Amino acid sequence: MDPDALSKAFVEHYYSTFDTNRAGLANLYQESSMLTFEGQKIQGSQNIVNKLTSLPFQQCKHSITTVDCQPSGPAGGMLVFVSGNLQLAGEQHALKFSQMFHLMPTPQGSFYVFNDIFRLNYA
Amino acid sequence: MDPDALSKAFVEHYYSTFDTNRAGLANLYQESSMLTFEGQKIQGSQNIVNKLTSLPFQQCKHSITTVDCQPSGPAGGMLVFVSGNLQLAGEQHALKFSQMFHLMPTPQGSFYVFNDIFRLNYA
Repeated sequence: MDPDALSKAFVEHYYSTFDTNRAGLANLYQESSMLTFEGQKIQGSQNIVNKLTSLPFQQCKHSITTVDCQPSGPAGGMLVFVSGNLQLAGEQHALKFSQMFHLMPTPQGSFYVFNDIFRLNYA
Repeated sequence: MDPDALSKAFVEHYYSTFDTNRAGLANLYQESSMLTFEGQKIQGSQNIVNKLTSLPFQQCKHSITTVDCQPSGPAGGMLVFVSGNLQLAGEQHALKFSQMFHLMPTPQGSFYVFNDIFRLNYA
C-alpha cells in the first residue's frame, strides 16, 4: 500500500472512530504515545483517551480538507498532516482544525500513533 | 536547552530568515530533506529553496500564533507544529497557515529540517 493511500485510510479510520466511538481510539495509541491538545501535553493511551472522551461535547463530525504525508526516517514511521473542519452538534459554524500524527510501525505490521498534535485554527 | 525553548528559537529563526533572506534557509535543509508545500512534494535543500524563493510574492511577514513540540523518537528528533499568519506586501488580509517541521540532530550538535509540511488554512 503506498504511503498516501495508507495515510488517507488511517485518517478516515481515525476520525470515523472519533465521531462514532471515541473510546475505541485507545487501540491506536500505546503507553509511549504523546498527545498535545490545544497546548496541553498528555502521555499514554489511557490518559489520551480519557482526555478525548471528556471533551465538552458529545456528538461531532470531522470533515477532512487535506491530508499530506512523508516518511519520518529509517525506523519506518510516517508523518501525517491533516486540515479539516469539526462540526459540533447544535453549533451553527464548524471549527477549523489542523492535526499531525506520527505513525510508527508495530511488529504485527500495523501502525500506532506515537505523536499527535491538535490545534483549532481560530478565524 | 529544553525542547519547548529550542523549538521556539528554531521557529523564530526560521521565519525571520524566511522574511528577510529566503535563500538563507538552504542551511537548514539537507539533501534528504522533504518539503510538502500546499500538496507539492519537493526533496533536497536546493530544490526546496528554489521553490521557496520562487513563490509569487517578494516581501512577507510571518506572525506566530502557536508552537507545539514533541520528541519524535529515540533518534533525538523533534516535531514542531506551528500555526500563524502570513502577511503579504500589498494584501489587506493576512493568510492563516499551519506548518510542521521534523528536526533531526546533526553530528555538530545542531538540528536540520528533515520533514516540512506547509498548508494555508483557507477561511
